[in-house]
Amino acid sequence: MSRVLLTGASGFLGSRALEALAEAGHEVHAVARSEPRHDSPGSGVLWHAADLTDPTAAARLMREVEPEGLLHMAWYVEHGRYWQASENVVWVEATLRLLRSFVAAGGRRAVMAGTCAEYEWSLDRYSEATAPLAPATLYGVAKDATRRLAESFAAKAGIELAWGRIFTPYGPGEDAARLLGSVILSLLAGEPTPAPEGAQVRDLMYVEDVARAFVALLDSPVQGAVNVASGQPTHIRELISLAAEAVGRPELVRWGGLASREGEPPELVADIGRLQREIGFAAGVELSEGVARTVAWWRERTS
Amino acid sequence: MSRVLLTGASGFLGSRALEALAEAGHEVHAVARSEPRHDSPGSGVLWHAADLTDPTAAARLMREVEPEGLLHMAWYVEHGRYWQASENVVWVEATLRLLRSFVAAGGRRAVMAGTCAEYEWSLDRYSEATAPLAPATLYGVAKDATRRLAESFAAKAGIELAWGRIFTPYGPGEDAARLLGSVILSLLAGEPTPAPEGAQVRDLMYVEDVARAFVALLDSPVQGAVNVASGQPTHIRELISLAAEAVGRPELVRWGGLASREGEPPELVADIGRLQREIGFAAGVELSEGVARTVAWWRERTS
Repeated sequence: MSRVLLTGASGFLGSRALEALAEAGHEVHAVARSEPRHDSPGSGVLWHAADLTDPTAAARLMREVEPEGLLHMAWYVEHGRYWQASENVVWVEATLRLLRSFVAAGGRRAVMAGTCAEYEWSLDRYSEATAPLAPATLYGVAKDATRRLAESFAAKAGIELAWGRIFTPYGPGEDAARLLGSVILSLLAGEPTPAPEGAQVRDLMYVEDVARAFVALLDSPVQGAVNVASGQPTHIRELISLAAEAVGRPELVRWGGLASREGEPPELVADIGRLQREIGFAAGVELSEGVARTVAWWRERTS
Repeated sequence: MSRVLLTGASGFLGSRALEALAEAGHEVHAVARSEPRHDSPGSGVLWHAADLTDPTAAARLMREVEPEGLLHMAWYVEHGRYWQASENVVWVEATLRLLRSFVAAGGRRAVMAGTCAEYEWSLDRYSEATAPLAPATLYGVAKDATRRLAESFAAKAGIELAWGRIFTPYGPGEDAARLLGSVILSLLAGEPTPAPEGAQVRDLMYVEDVARAFVALLDSPVQGAVNVASGQPTHIRELISLAAEAVGRPELVRWGGLASREGEPPELVADIGRLQREIGFAAGVELSEGVARTVAWWRERTS
């Protein structure tokens, strides 16, 4: 694989995938709605401004680039809204158009970003082969339906398709309104910081590891759904404690001062057998190190 | 319900749904790619020429008509090709756009045409509540994914949605390349007529009954998937025998002269409990009568 088109290239995960693709030696064509951010890496990356929800954008882009590989990370992700927003349906349409145009332009292997929200949230560990798919949200339904269609269509069209199910990524660049960012910002400001009790268990993966895992998936011949996660269960309370330690203000945390989101499952942990054995991927950044880097990133932006 | 938009209105099933909607007293807005056929009923029906695979068509149409009800029967149905054609993906996109535009224009209840091909073809009778969904074809995957998305989106948008799973419709107006039409045409021409052994069991429903069932579904408050079928198992051999009797040339049939389509399930019969009990629908046309009418229709067209 050499010429790769990356969507969502200015996003939280996409911007790291961009770096990882360039490092792996691909000719990267990065797609974002508007011009690239100033801090994005420029070397070896060709930027294309395109709004993929515009029905004509994908076909034009694919004819222009003629990519061999596609890494599709763009989606509607507005914090708090994306779980149930109708934009999910718009992005199903955009993704199907993108894939059809990719095939029409001679594309050979596509990797797309899925989510643990495709699973029925009822287990303590999720395996791609056995966990039931019964999404509780429109976001999950939209990703799940897209995967079903994309896999079936790719098989008929004679191209390869893999689908990375992301669990709980964290790290620099995340939306400041999300839990970890908002807690760090509050602690850095020296304010009393409400936090959830944090009994929920999540499968946290540092953003750069998520990005590297997707590039490893793209560079492999593996098809179908693959969990992209660490496989390590972590209480949210531990995540917040690590952040508070890294900031140096653990006394500011007000445990239980923040309610959990309704409908949140108590536990979301991946079986990462496929990622480890079939892709040969190992995460590189330990939780404490990842949290420390995240705090350092926010500190730089607020000092 | 009064103002209803019907898609696929010039098709095999849609043209009969048009008649049934008008008979039921609805103000019918009929959508077809081109001008209506000469033999379509004109009274109380307003025609709109629109290609729903054009990304701008649905929004324009919905703004113009502002329908309260939507009966969506349009899809890609080219005989022999539709099971695996990429056009199925195009029609998923078209259907999602149509539904979003319907909601945006104030629509309240949508009914869409699904298929028994959404089920895993492994049972001898299919119930909406219990039969596993594991489509063997791209057509089935596309319809199944559309239903998942449409139901979830409709629930968030606060509109009602029902999904009629069609089994094996037959009758006047069917594609001449399909089994029953081609057999009847050959028999009418007085030619030796190859036919399959016909051991497969199908759930046949006369086209007008299918259309009336969809209108009954639209006029009901029932949501979710509902099998649209007779519930009567019939050997394909019996269907062809009835046709040969109706033509008056049973001696022309060459049993076993035609191979069955690969991957065809031996048995496809619906549990019609929902259609009967919740919709209160009863089919009106017996198989022998339906076949006789079909033969009469073809005879008229070839004499």
